[in-house]
Amino acid sequence: MQAKNIAVVGATGAVGEEILRVLERRNFPVGKLKLLASERSVGKTLDFKGKPVPVELLAAGAFKGTDIAFFSAGATRSREFVPAAKAAGAVVVDNSSAFRMDPNTPLVVPEVNPGDLRRHKGVIANPNCTAAILATAVWPIHQAVGIRKIVVSTYQSASGAGAAAMRELEDQVRQYAEGKPVTHTVFPHQIAFNLFSHNTKVAENGYNEEENKVIEEMRKMFHAPDLPILPTCIRVPVLRAHSESVALELEAPMSPEEAREILRRAPGIKIVDDPVANHFPMPLEASGDLDVHVGRIRRDLTNPNGLALFVAGDQLLKGAAWNAVQIAEELAKLPVEVA
Amino acid sequence: MQAKNIAVVGATGAVGEEILRVLERRNFPVGKLKLLASERSVGKTLDFKGKPVPVELLAAGAFKGTDIAFFSAGATRSREFVPAAKAAGAVVVDNSSAFRMDPNTPLVVPEVNPGDLRRHKGVIANPNCTAAILATAVWPIHQAVGIRKIVVSTYQSASGAGAAAMRELEDQVRQYAEGKPVTHTVFPHQIAFNLFSHNTKVAENGYNEEENKVIEEMRKMFHAPDLPILPTCIRVPVLRAHSESVALELEAPMSPEEAREILRRAPGIKIVDDPVANHFPMPLEASGDLDVHVGRIRRDLTNPNGLALFVAGDQLLKGAAWNAVQIAEELAKLPVEVA
Repeated sequence: MQAKNIAVVGATGAVGEEILRVLERRNFPVGKLKLLASERSVGKTLDFKGKPVPVELLAAGAFKGTDIAFFSAGATRSREFVPAAKAAGAVVVDNSSAFRMDPNTPLVVPEVNPGDLRRHKGVIANPNCTAAILATAVWPIHQAVGIRKIVVSTYQSASGAGAAAMRELEDQVRQYAEGKPVTHTVFPHQIAFNLFSHNTKVAENGYNEEENKVIEEMRKMFHAPDLPILPTCIRVPVLRAHSESVALELEAPMSPEEAREILRRAPGIKIVDDPVANHFPMPLEASGDLDVHVGRIRRDLTNPNGLALFVAGDQLLKGAAWNAVQIAEELAKLPVEVA
Repeated sequence: MQAKNIAVVGATGAVGEEILRVLERRNFPVGKLKLLASERSVGKTLDFKGKPVPVELLAAGAFKGTDIAFFSAGATRSREFVPAAKAAGAVVVDNSSAFRMDPNTPLVVPEVNPGDLRRHKGVIANPNCTAAILATAVWPIHQAVGIRKIVVSTYQSASGAGAAAMRELEDQVRQYAEGKPVTHTVFPHQIAFNLFSHNTKVAENGYNEEENKVIEEMRKMFHAPDLPILPTCIRVPVLRAHSESVALELEAPMSPEEAREILRRAPGIKIVDDPVANHFPMPLEASGDLDVHVGRIRRDLTNPNGLALFVAGDQLLKGAAWNAVQIAEELAKLPVEVA
């Protein structure tokens, strides 16, 4: 792959920093590297391949010469600055929700719908973390036999709410350990030793924003606009990997053995399913891993077409940074278009 | 109510201590109070109504004059000593799994099947904590319209594994806060900042013991031997309340408004369901409360007969000690049998 000039927007955030680590880890051919952030972070430096790189101000003029711009600074900043990056000739991989449901923007998990990359018009959306992890885990089953319904309850880590939320969880356990009152400013409720319904607005349909993202994004990626999904999104006191309890209703029966074999051969999945050792997917083990861990693969004893599983995936990696870099890797494999 | 002589077996355990607190809180008319435990705890004292009570050795001869014996020292000790308590004339409320599925032993949540108490033969079983909390929350809906299927994913606290497990979670966050390596001896995996599939043996059917208890005990209490239930039981880093994400398939449609009204009128339930304030059931708020908190009551958008909810209940109270004391209160209301 030819070296690419890279810009990382939101470089000092939890996902931005992980993008740098994944670019290193994948030995991605980075030409010039530009780190962009808001005023507050200008002057800081971040290490890349052992060298300090200064953080520059995010501005419309900052994208000159950029081949690929990773955006991870929230939907508002994406809406403001993605057009400038596009105009400067960069291909944008956007981790925010700004363009995910735009019909002209492909929403891609490379293990699921890499073909959608071909119709990009300068912007590719990176899905919501919960949706990306769920999609990776159940797509091979959907391909094999067809999914009729998904009931999913999540166990979502603090990292989904950013670096400040991770620090808040750590601060709270420190306060608790020192016998001090436990305080919170990032989350609406104490997260240490607690859990709560996902801290996004509940819409008129009774589902919060996170749950509605899971429904809509799964349908878009699966090209299944009516796929029935019942999500319950819950925040738990875990630092950086999301877990998901998944009940599937399939179009035809599939034994746990068949499912295990299909998932074992599928890309991006690691089977962690050892009943004898009582060893199944755990966020602590999934943290730092590019693969999504899948286990507890078992029959739904109440439905011949049912199958249940438990999933854990690193929210910052497959749920964000790794999926974004993976999209960039896939883009480089596409045939060069002749204008 | 006439004063009753009470024995608490396993008095120094997490549930045993809570039984004392609930007896105080309910102003239960306690005559003589006997605290029984294994050799290790003999010599300790526990406070009851401000006075120290010595812990005595659990032995077959210890139950003379006891009216009600609360057992909470595990299934092995229940199997060994319940017959002696019964022979001494005590009525036993057993918190272990030893007799729950025995056809001659009623398994009771007083809000659900108080009538079953009438056919007791000296022993009443207190259900598994997850089953007790789930049963309390969904029984009123089952009564109103009939439940066709339950899919439940749990978020279970450390207290379910006893006082030592609660200490292990606290020790681990302390170790983490002090930058020390995090160690574990009670649970098979680190629990702080982690979660894992319930630490009981996985049976041949693919479900662990906890999940199979939920299935079997719900069916017994509901007098619905074939009630379809798909449980996934997960341990989370929370101290003492269990949460449950519940998807119900009903025999007929029920609107969230109807369900909320039915649950609001039902005993043992507190509705915590405020989408505007993003305030729903949380283990931290359910801790210490006798009621089961129910919220996120919403339609399953994929099924006209579907309904979803989120539940939190104190594992040590409704899941154990309070349900046991409540059974004793109900027993006292029964007409005295004439031999």
